[in-house]
Amino acid sequence: MIFNTEELLAQLQDALERDEFDSAIHLIEVLRGPDQAMLFAELDDDEQVELLPKLDLSDSADILEDLDNPETAKLAASLPVETIARIVDEMEPDKAADLLGDLTDQQTQAVLARLDDADEVRPLLIHPDESAGGLMTSEFLALRPLMTAQEAIEALRNWDPDSEEIYYLFVADEKKQLCGVVNLRQLILASDNTLIENLMDGDVISVNTGADQEECARTMAHYDLSAIPVVDEDGLIMGVITHDDIVDVLEEEATEDVYRLSNISNSELDPDSSIKEQLKGRLPWLYLNTLTALFGAWVISNYEQVIAQAAVLALFQSVVAGQGGNTASQNIAMAVRTLATERVSTKTQRRIIIRQIFMGLILGIAVGAVVALGVYLWRGNIYLSFVLGLALVANLSLGSMVGILVPLGLEKIGIDPALASSVLVTAATDSMGFFIFLSLAAHFLKQIQ
Amino acid sequence: MIFNTEELLAQLQDALERDEFDSAIHLIEVLRGPDQAMLFAELDDDEQVELLPKLDLSDSADILEDLDNPETAKLAASLPVETIARIVDEMEPDKAADLLGDLTDQQTQAVLARLDDADEVRPLLIHPDESAGGLMTSEFLALRPLMTAQEAIEALRNWDPDSEEIYYLFVADEKKQLCGVVNLRQLILASDNTLIENLMDGDVISVNTGADQEECARTMAHYDLSAIPVVDEDGLIMGVITHDDIVDVLEEEATEDVYRLSNISNSELDPDSSIKEQLKGRLPWLYLNTLTALFGAWVISNYEQVIAQAAVLALFQSVVAGQGGNTASQNIAMAVRTLATERVSTKTQRRIIIRQIFMGLILGIAVGAVVALGVYLWRGNIYLSFVLGLALVANLSLGSMVGILVPLGLEKIGIDPALASSVLVTAATDSMGFFIFLSLAAHFLKQIQ
Repeated sequence: MIFNTEELLAQLQDALERDEFDSAIHLIEVLRGPDQAMLFAELDDDEQVELLPKLDLSDSADILEDLDNPETAKLAASLPVETIARIVDEMEPDKAADLLGDLTDQQTQAVLARLDDADEVRPLLIHPDESAGGLMTSEFLALRPLMTAQEAIEALRNWDPDSEEIYYLFVADEKKQLCGVVNLRQLILASDNTLIENLMDGDVISVNTGADQEECARTMAHYDLSAIPVVDEDGLIMGVITHDDIVDVLEEEATEDVYRLSNISNSELDPDSSIKEQLKGRLPWLYLNTLTALFGAWVISNYEQVIAQAAVLALFQSVVAGQGGNTASQNIAMAVRTLATERVSTKTQRRIIIRQIFMGLILGIAVGAVVALGVYLWRGNIYLSFVLGLALVANLSLGSMVGILVPLGLEKIGIDPALASSVLVTAATDSMGFFIFLSLAAHFLKQIQ
Repeated sequence: MIFNTEELLAQLQDALERDEFDSAIHLIEVLRGPDQAMLFAELDDDEQVELLPKLDLSDSADILEDLDNPETAKLAASLPVETIARIVDEMEPDKAADLLGDLTDQQTQAVLARLDDADEVRPLLIHPDESAGGLMTSEFLALRPLMTAQEAIEALRNWDPDSEEIYYLFVADEKKQLCGVVNLRQLILASDNTLIENLMDGDVISVNTGADQEECARTMAHYDLSAIPVVDEDGLIMGVITHDDIVDVLEEEATEDVYRLSNISNSELDPDSSIKEQLKGRLPWLYLNTLTALFGAWVISNYEQVIAQAAVLALFQSVVAGQGGNTASQNIAMAVRTLATERVSTKTQRRIIIRQIFMGLILGIAVGAVVALGVYLWRGNIYLSFVLGLALVANLSLGSMVGILVPLGLEKIGIDPALASSVLVTAATDSMGFFIFLSLAAHFLKQIQ
């Protein structure tokens, strides 16, 4: 960002500590909305509670719009209901609905009762946060097909939204049925008496209120749209999703992928989340992984006598298991991101699977040969080197194969490949790695000892 | 998407096979631009080369704009220079520059010489693809401060860009110095004689031509901008980046994070990339990981005699190492995504580090206790259970600590935490895990045997 947050934060906290609220408010007010929120988020909880009610209502609204959801709700809940209502009135309806959704039912009802424009927010409350209905704003202007360009501009003039930006103007008939889209530039360039129905593009891309937020974001990204209308089952226009929402959604989905691949099930966690929240999102996956690790230990236990006679095997079993796992992780990462960002046809899937099996074989030979050579130089036992090299070729090939088959298979049966691939595949590469290496070694036990 | 790609693709390939080009062209033409590209991308290479020159120039341009870069260049290179030039003329200048940048120098010069509007594309060729200059389009309209609203609308009327959408109108003085921004709605609502300088907002957020694409995307996302002007060192306006570009950039950066965390260094790889490209992006990381795994083997080799006397230790050493690694991966994932999407103040960093160390201790106790109990029930040796449990507590605590310290530290010294964290941290959790478990076990060797 353009300013030095650390410095500004120090000044702000200093002012708050000395109860110099005017200068504190001034420090915030000169910033742009998103910067206000960023600075505000750095304050301690009690400083936030102290400062917020003293700020301008529209600044408070900007700040609450930009803060993270759980933070916003906690902060808002600490304010008097009347104050919340005044701030919510200034917020964009979709953000207002998000905030109200995070409050208790009682608080929500109390705030709604005090709002100036409760009717704008109320319909948004019924949709889940992660659906098109939860993302959309009810603040849109729908033109009529039989308006003239001049009438449309007049309507635009009389409309006073909380957000300054307009991307497209949607056209709906008297039943509110979506029937077209006009971009602002076309409207300006048209002569005064042109009918909207002659200006509009009747081929409008829309999403349903129940559509998942990722589907909305992907559709907008695919068609390069800066806004998309949301319709109900009857095609009636209910709201509009704008481009700033899709950036948030895509970031959320990317974080979810990274987290799930790293065995965290709650994508809202960050390193600063409460211990309790982190335990809930992390411990079950650690337990699951521990279970598969103990299965790996059981595989090894079948070769305990072999290891007792050649303890050197204990050095290298993890190398075989681990490199199979690393190869598989590479495949999972590529499969997960590819499935997330594009469509993969059946034909392409077949080609990919064959390519990745071949890839695993090549990687296995490349890694196996080098390790075999290195370990021969270190331990001087050609049989050990041979067994290790061969086990690596086999486990990297198998790792590469399950690393592509598992995510593609999970996607096919409707499970998010990011969620389960990593634990399933690691279980496979670990136990297979131990089994292949130790069972091979058992055959050459005399020579390895 | 709205149509069934598999079915449409089958029809299209069928038509091409029977040389029924008219019906093939019709199948494509009825689709929207991005859908045309998606379907076209599914064709085999020779089918693409055959079909592209037969399509309408503007359809070809749409398709080339939406295909992946390497594909586009390969395809374009197969066409006659004159055909490429005609198609490039129809493309948006930023996409045209991307395409020309991927051709050989000779081809690029030949195409440039034949373009109708080479001057729009030429200046874009000097900027690296991943910079603001490489993302921006030179197709923008800059208003003058002393124009009236009516003159501005007249200017807009006479302007005929390849892209239909306009988000903001930027204002520049006679030296091309950026001095303000007007949104289209304000322009419409203004009375005819209002001067642009009275309409415009003088507080314009811009980026420099050399700014990294991620910085541009983050700035636009932070301020919810649908377009941002790009200026040179003297503040002269050089181009505009639009919202569709930032979605691509954020997706690219997210893929880069996932790939780097999974040890793939080239974020353009996908499961369908050529064996050669995949080897280049994957094998060096596998070798690096193998090296750290062999270091782990060396750590174990110091306890070879201990294992020879108690082979049961070989079963559980990997459980300790692996669960430390999993805990650390969770921390790395949270740290990488948090650093990628928001600013973390020094104060917050300190709090996070303390929290994660504490977190590791709790996770260690939770996992250690369960594994100790389970292994006691399985093997019936209380000393083994005790050593294993204690080693897990220690390694999960250490894993959690390095899992937060390493990414934060890398970020501080300007290295992408996603790139190196995973290999460094795994090396640590593996060798520490082996060392802690085996050295503890060595103390209780008699009781474990």
